[in-house]
Amino acid sequence: MDFFNTLTYKEVLELIEKKYSDICIESEDINILDSLGRVLSEDIISPEDLPHFNRSTVDGYSVISNDTFGASEAIPSIHKIVEKIEMGKKSKMSLSSGEAAYIPTGAMVPKNSDAVVMIEHSELLSEDEVALYKGVAHLENIIKAGDDISKGAKIIQKGKKIRPQEIAILASVGIDKVKVRKKIKCTIISTGDELIDINEKIEEGKIRDINTYAIEAMLKDCGCEVMSKVVLKDTKSLFEKTLKEAISKSDLVLISGGSSVGDRDHTYDVIKSMGEVFVHGISIKPGKPTILGVSEKTAIVGLPGHPGAAISVFEVVVKAIINKLEKCSAKKRVGVYKISTNVHSAPGKHTIQLVKIEKERAIPILGKSSMISCLSEADGYIEIPMDSEGLYKEQEVNVNFF
Amino acid sequence: MDFFNTLTYKEVLELIEKKYSDICIESEDINILDSLGRVLSEDIISPEDLPHFNRSTVDGYSVISNDTFGASEAIPSIHKIVEKIEMGKKSKMSLSSGEAAYIPTGAMVPKNSDAVVMIEHSELLSEDEVALYKGVAHLENIIKAGDDISKGAKIIQKGKKIRPQEIAILASVGIDKVKVRKKIKCTIISTGDELIDINEKIEEGKIRDINTYAIEAMLKDCGCEVMSKVVLKDTKSLFEKTLKEAISKSDLVLISGGSSVGDRDHTYDVIKSMGEVFVHGISIKPGKPTILGVSEKTAIVGLPGHPGAAISVFEVVVKAIINKLEKCSAKKRVGVYKISTNVHSAPGKHTIQLVKIEKERAIPILGKSSMISCLSEADGYIEIPMDSEGLYKEQEVNVNFF
Repeated sequence: MDFFNTLTYKEVLELIEKKYSDICIESEDINILDSLGRVLSEDIISPEDLPHFNRSTVDGYSVISNDTFGASEAIPSIHKIVEKIEMGKKSKMSLSSGEAAYIPTGAMVPKNSDAVVMIEHSELLSEDEVALYKGVAHLENIIKAGDDISKGAKIIQKGKKIRPQEIAILASVGIDKVKVRKKIKCTIISTGDELIDINEKIEEGKIRDINTYAIEAMLKDCGCEVMSKVVLKDTKSLFEKTLKEAISKSDLVLISGGSSVGDRDHTYDVIKSMGEVFVHGISIKPGKPTILGVSEKTAIVGLPGHPGAAISVFEVVVKAIINKLEKCSAKKRVGVYKISTNVHSAPGKHTIQLVKIEKERAIPILGKSSMISCLSEADGYIEIPMDSEGLYKEQEVNVNFF
Repeated sequence: MDFFNTLTYKEVLELIEKKYSDICIESEDINILDSLGRVLSEDIISPEDLPHFNRSTVDGYSVISNDTFGASEAIPSIHKIVEKIEMGKKSKMSLSSGEAAYIPTGAMVPKNSDAVVMIEHSELLSEDEVALYKGVAHLENIIKAGDDISKGAKIIQKGKKIRPQEIAILASVGIDKVKVRKKIKCTIISTGDELIDINEKIEEGKIRDINTYAIEAMLKDCGCEVMSKVVLKDTKSLFEKTLKEAISKSDLVLISGGSSVGDRDHTYDVIKSMGEVFVHGISIKPGKPTILGVSEKTAIVGLPGHPGAAISVFEVVVKAIINKLEKCSAKKRVGVYKISTNVHSAPGKHTIQLVKIEKERAIPILGKSSMISCLSEADGYIEIPMDSEGLYKEQEVNVNFF
């Protein structure tokens, strides 16, 4: 086996940028209602103005602003009502001086009109005559065509993960289809002689296959598609065959090692025989025995066997890989909190510490790293850089939310 | 029409608690892999111990700790190797004094053994004899059966929204099915003579139906099921018929008013004719013209017509209703940030201000409240309570992440 140095977390992130830059997930056209959580693979340019016409922001009377100059409670300006504009209808008139048109909020301002007087400042004198008690400035109470979004403007950038907000914007300018990355195709391979499935009867010595479930759930949560999942006994030849097939049909292969001795090496050997291994050990805690490799257009990750460690590595390493493959610009949701107690970290290691938020404090969830029961308590995690020796009580930390 | 006072946001949250307490979404049994994002409707009690047996946390030799008392580099304790325990296999032996068994990490500790000496502190003398250079204490390097999760313990509480972490815990104790709330059945009704669909050609005077899309996306994002969506012209009789049908088949009906004059009143009248209206106007900004009602077992919400306002009200009001119906205990993801500029708020109103996060500062996204283009920039929002006059630059604020 080759000699490998454990890499720092920063080095690993740089390698992810570099080594996976040739893998690019294809695009597909999709209806905007099916696009939630998908990553845009094109900039969105507005095909039209929003609003599409000059629009009133109030209920009132549409006028030529000059006509109302000097109007006040004492000396109103008197206008002839020439139109009652309806919602959704095109205004038919072009206003002349001394004329006004009744207009509801959101309706189209008639030609020549450049301001709207609010209904509160008006008094109907007769069916076709209104007194306006307040002067309005040019464009007062009007949104001009294109004021919100102008035709040809870039309204959403490539790489954005689509949320309901983006769907609202797309709908607002009449875009019903967008180009997004296809879902990342994933295969999960779990190895270990000791693994039994969750619906088998537990026996002494056996361990339930937690990772296949946890990894599938995390992948789905990231919007990936799990093509297949395989649980293998620890034999190298079976593993070789399975990995080869997985590579041929997946963009991303996640391997969860059993805890048998020698497992890790044989994961390494087999990945290497099919491509390149560029990370074999990361100075993070938990998660040291992580392997990253690439074979043609497939990213391959060997995750630590312990579920707590596998979940942590997924958060800080696999999510970075997924973002890289999808060319996604999504930011992490991070909150600054004061930490409730001193926290010791492993010197020389990038430490991932689960925390829960209570009373506006981040509370570290301590306990042996092997504790699975801790997972449900956690609202997120903090990262303690390798050059720090730990955190002091009340120090401010960035909490990454799950 | 009845006289209604605008209620404060706090009063509205209290009314949601009270008026919707009779509506309860039914439960269903679901495979854990399909349970992501669903709300548990039962406490989860572990049916077994985790680990299921005393387990070694290191590679080494399983011994009786007393035998190693005083062992050191200078004076090792010598043990007869009686077994080589394999992963996934039940240990066959019961150790006697002076004996040891080779054990890999995660494997089952043999009967009578109460500690494991790490392999680093051992030296094989012959095939069946090992020297141990370090004494171990009772239970050193062992996780006892049930140490992580004990049989009968409550491991996840009712009301929790299931994340990958919860799926890992469920798998770890062999639970493959859980009871969760069914998806909330929703109907969306949009009214307005001016509305045209996003794939129609835009005309002057017309406005694209943004809200039906935005609301459907937000509901899906919350894990709800949109049963049907209807876009109506503004006629009361059609609205009555549609609402009646919606109530009969939905847990939650969301009505998005057009902006036509009188719209709001007729929404109010029709809801009232079918049940109770208990909120008619909230002192929040944006979102004042919000209506909340109930008819038998259906929650009814009238949202403001403007998409920006509708999205804000969804965040702070509709999400509270969804949590109430599902009896969900999920916390908001909130981060404390300093605000980049002074922000004026509307006195007497609970103000919802969109913000983006940049350089560890919350930056308010200003612009007319009618701007749809602002939505995509926002990472979340802050709430300014009604008794505050605004925020000072550098003041700490709670950012609610989208």
